[in-house]
Amino acid sequence: MLASELARKLGCDFVGPGDPEIDGVAPIDEAAPSDVAFLYNRIYRRRIASTSAGMVVLQSDDLPDRHDFAAAISDNPHRCMAQAVDLLYPKEIIEPHVDRSANIDPSATIGKKVSIGAFARIGPGCVVGDGAIIGEGVVLGARVHLGPRCRLFPRVVVYADTWLGEGCIVHAGTVLGSDGFGFAPTEDGILKIRQVGRLIIEQDVEIGANCTVDRGSFTETRICRGTKIDNLVQIAHNCRIGECCLIASQTGLAGSTILGDRVMVGGQVGFAGHQKVSDGSIILAKSGVVSDVPPRSKLFGIPARNSITEHREGIYLARLGELFKRVKALEKKLEEK
Amino acid sequence: MLASELARKLGCDFVGPGDPEIDGVAPIDEAAPSDVAFLYNRIYRRRIASTSAGMVVLQSDDLPDRHDFAAAISDNPHRCMAQAVDLLYPKEIIEPHVDRSANIDPSATIGKKVSIGAFARIGPGCVVGDGAIIGEGVVLGARVHLGPRCRLFPRVVVYADTWLGEGCIVHAGTVLGSDGFGFAPTEDGILKIRQVGRLIIEQDVEIGANCTVDRGSFTETRICRGTKIDNLVQIAHNCRIGECCLIASQTGLAGSTILGDRVMVGGQVGFAGHQKVSDGSIILAKSGVVSDVPPRSKLFGIPARNSITEHREGIYLARLGELFKRVKALEKKLEEK
Amino acid sequence: MLASELARKLGCDFVGPGDPEIDGVAPIDEAAPSDVAFLYNRIYRRRIASTSAGMVVLQSDDLPDRHDFAAAISDNPHRCMAQAVDLLYPKEIIEPHVDRSANIDPSATIGKKVSIGAFARIGPGCVVGDGAIIGEGVVLGARVHLGPRCRLFPRVVVYADTWLGEGCIVHAGTVLGSDGFGFAPTEDGILKIRQVGRLIIEQDVEIGANCTVDRGSFTETRICRGTKIDNLVQIAHNCRIGECCLIASQTGLAGSTILGDRVMVGGQVGFAGHQKVSDGSIILAKSGVVSDVPPRSKLFGIPARNSITEHREGIYLARLGELFKRVKALEKKLEEK
Repeated sequence: MLASELARKLGCDFVGPGDPEIDGVAPIDEAAPSDVAFLYNRIYRRRIASTSAGMVVLQSDDLPDRHDFAAAISDNPHRCMAQAVDLLYPKEIIEPHVDRSANIDPSATIGKKVSIGAFARIGPGCVVGDGAIIGEGVVLGARVHLGPRCRLFPRVVVYADTWLGEGCIVHAGTVLGSDGFGFAPTEDGILKIRQVGRLIIEQDVEIGANCTVDRGSFTETRICRGTKIDNLVQIAHNCRIGECCLIASQTGLAGSTILGDRVMVGGQVGFAGHQKVSDGSIILAKSGVVSDVPPRSKLFGIPARNSITEHREGIYLARLGELFKRVKALEKKLEEK
Repeated sequence: MLASELARKLGCDFVGPGDPEIDGVAPIDEAAPSDVAFLYNRIYRRRIASTSAGMVVLQSDDLPDRHDFAAAISDNPHRCMAQAVDLLYPKEIIEPHVDRSANIDPSATIGKKVSIGAFARIGPGCVVGDGAIIGEGVVLGARVHLGPRCRLFPRVVVYADTWLGEGCIVHAGTVLGSDGFGFAPTEDGILKIRQVGRLIIEQDVEIGANCTVDRGSFTETRICRGTKIDNLVQIAHNCRIGECCLIASQTGLAGSTILGDRVMVGGQVGFAGHQKVSDGSIILAKSGVVSDVPPRSKLFGIPARNSITEHREGIYLARLGELFKRVKALEKKLEEK
Repeated sequence: MLASELARKLGCDFVGPGDPEIDGVAPIDEAAPSDVAFLYNRIYRRRIASTSAGMVVLQSDDLPDRHDFAAAISDNPHRCMAQAVDLLYPKEIIEPHVDRSANIDPSATIGKKVSIGAFARIGPGCVVGDGAIIGEGVVLGARVHLGPRCRLFPRVVVYADTWLGEGCIVHAGTVLGSDGFGFAPTEDGILKIRQVGRLIIEQDVEIGANCTVDRGSFTETRICRGTKIDNLVQIAHNCRIGECCLIASQTGLAGSTILGDRVMVGGQVGFAGHQKVSDGSIILAKSGVVSDVPPRSKLFGIPARNSITEHREGIYLARLGELFKRVKALEKKLEEK
């Protein structure tokens, strides 16, 4: 596709110079002359000077005075990147097909144009919406609800009574609706508290591979619409995750953690449970959050605190050896007087 | 069920006032008038003033002078909660049934009243105890022993020669008895040390979803009876976990970690391996344990230390900026003299 | 086998005294008189004084003046341990056999002497090399390439277009080639960036259980030959892991992390992404790596720094209470003057 045509389809203002043929998307520093690159993080602004990309999509402020690549201007180059991938790369086409080996309980309700892979099991009373794609070896327990156009990759396990809204994507190996970690220590050992709540996942949620999301202990665990979750994330019983959150890999939410909307969480973060994280907060990677988080906070550390406070302490800490020396010098001086 | 009847069945002293109909269990701050709530953690003591619960089960010390809810007194409200769930919520009934698609090796020994789900595979020489429930897609390797009344949720994989005692519960996607991370670096690359030991899990152990528990390298890995493990936990080769431990999500034990009995471990903790943790120790979330742990310790931090020491350092650390200023002031003062 | 014969087969100089029958391998402090033990980490040097092992393989420098065990000298006792396990323990023999229930797409190419377990699914266009072993319930998406003698344990899922070289081992439940965490926030929600790259795993790589390795977003994610990865590890899109690295459990590499050759990474480490870690670096457990790592570094901490710097700070930190007191004393003294 010509660069100018692609720019038009992305809703960008095409600046040029030139109008190369574009057939792929690549990072700025790896792009070839037939690639389009996207400057969506200003950290990489310097790299565009040396890029070999045929076209670069960027915000007008980031456009250098001189450039060899064909430039295209957008308010949101990141969104354009998502759209460009759709335009330039062929989409996987999955024909609706129910494999002969799939084990579907006669009491299940299967919608139109559904695809069900080999060795999948659909339990009694399940409802599978139109256009859903169920991968090989998926197991749906009793009374699971799968909204239209959901896609479950191979080997996802969904425990009984879990509800998923329209258009959710769940990657391979993830377990939804498992029992929470609820136990009562007694003199005779540890007694299991049967987990009788359920798990609700609203529309357009995507969950990565090999995650675990527990059902509610009495009421529910809920992931609200549009939230995206990376691989190997743990979400415990009774959590509520707001809309359009982004949660990176290996993060864990202990029981009854409440995230607001648009919260961004880095990798390997831990939430201690029973706390509220306000809308729009950012929790940096590897933090441990132990108390409520006020709106629009940016936290870091164990325990997590304002990332500037944490950063300042790091600087003081690095100078601690020097401080010991200065105090020693003072003591000596005072001794001598 | 009337509150007074429920209290009697839980072995509590019923105080009243009133005797509402109770049909559910709920947290103190979410409970409705038809719910029973349980005060098992004194942190939430204040919340009972404003609860709408029809009944609250609590210790006698925690009973306020005035209360609208029907109170019931117990030494262990947490245990009562586990019992109340059993009384108030219907139990899942699983009829013994071996699915036609299950692939059972003719040399396996299957007990009475066993349930085996679709697409499960039972390898040669396996022994499955009476009343065991084996979920869809479970794979038992050769010579696996499954005690009576064990429940394996869908897609659990058990490597050859693993032994599970009576009444164990293993959640979906967990892998038991996989090879430990044993390798010898050489000039020609990294040589695998074949892992020839096995994994023993004693009775009444529960393991969460998507965990990994490695077999012993030569001898065994062992999890002793009554221990409960949350989701996504890693237990490496040659570990020994004592009785009635509680291990929260995403914690990892490196090779040859030895936990005593009744050890409580928070989420995302790491054990460096080859160390002993004494009976009754508590390791707080996100800690990194690098040395032996004396009896009844409460540890926190990386590396993990006495949690009070760690806490005190945190306070000093927060005042470090102030200390720099004070030293500067001293230096100036001394200069001027 | 006689100790002297085993020593000869391991390429060791046999010292004696005595020549016991050896039939097992064990750790130094657990070994019986019929076991051989290996001193491959000098930390355990002291333990050989009290060992009951029939034979100990060790470096000549570590040989004590007096010893009851039969000693054997080697430059690399760790390598000998790997070899001894192969000599002393029977190997699992897996007869080439394709289970009748396996679902193999007619367009797949299956090599000679391949073993395919029950309920495995081989997608269209797959190539399975000679001698490969595919466990029960494995799912290979379209066009997956599996080199000769690869072994996939049960329930491994491999997404479309993933390529594995010769002799790779992948443990149960691991997911290869899943979508990376690529999303563009917009005013209307979060837009998925379709992940159109692929995953290349070179020869002799071993990956533990329940790991997740994402495909490239546009180009590739690559794990180079001879690298070994433990359980529950996350490798994000566009990472490149060099040759012969060792990565311990629960570690996570964020997008575009580049590891050189022979990098050793402890457990629960996090890499923030978009950084380069030089050949031969060592990253200690629980560290958080946020910037490029120079050659042969040994790092620790969050953020990870030279482990000696980190250690020194720890010592200063422990003395911080004392420093506050000393400053207070100085202030008082100066006040008095």
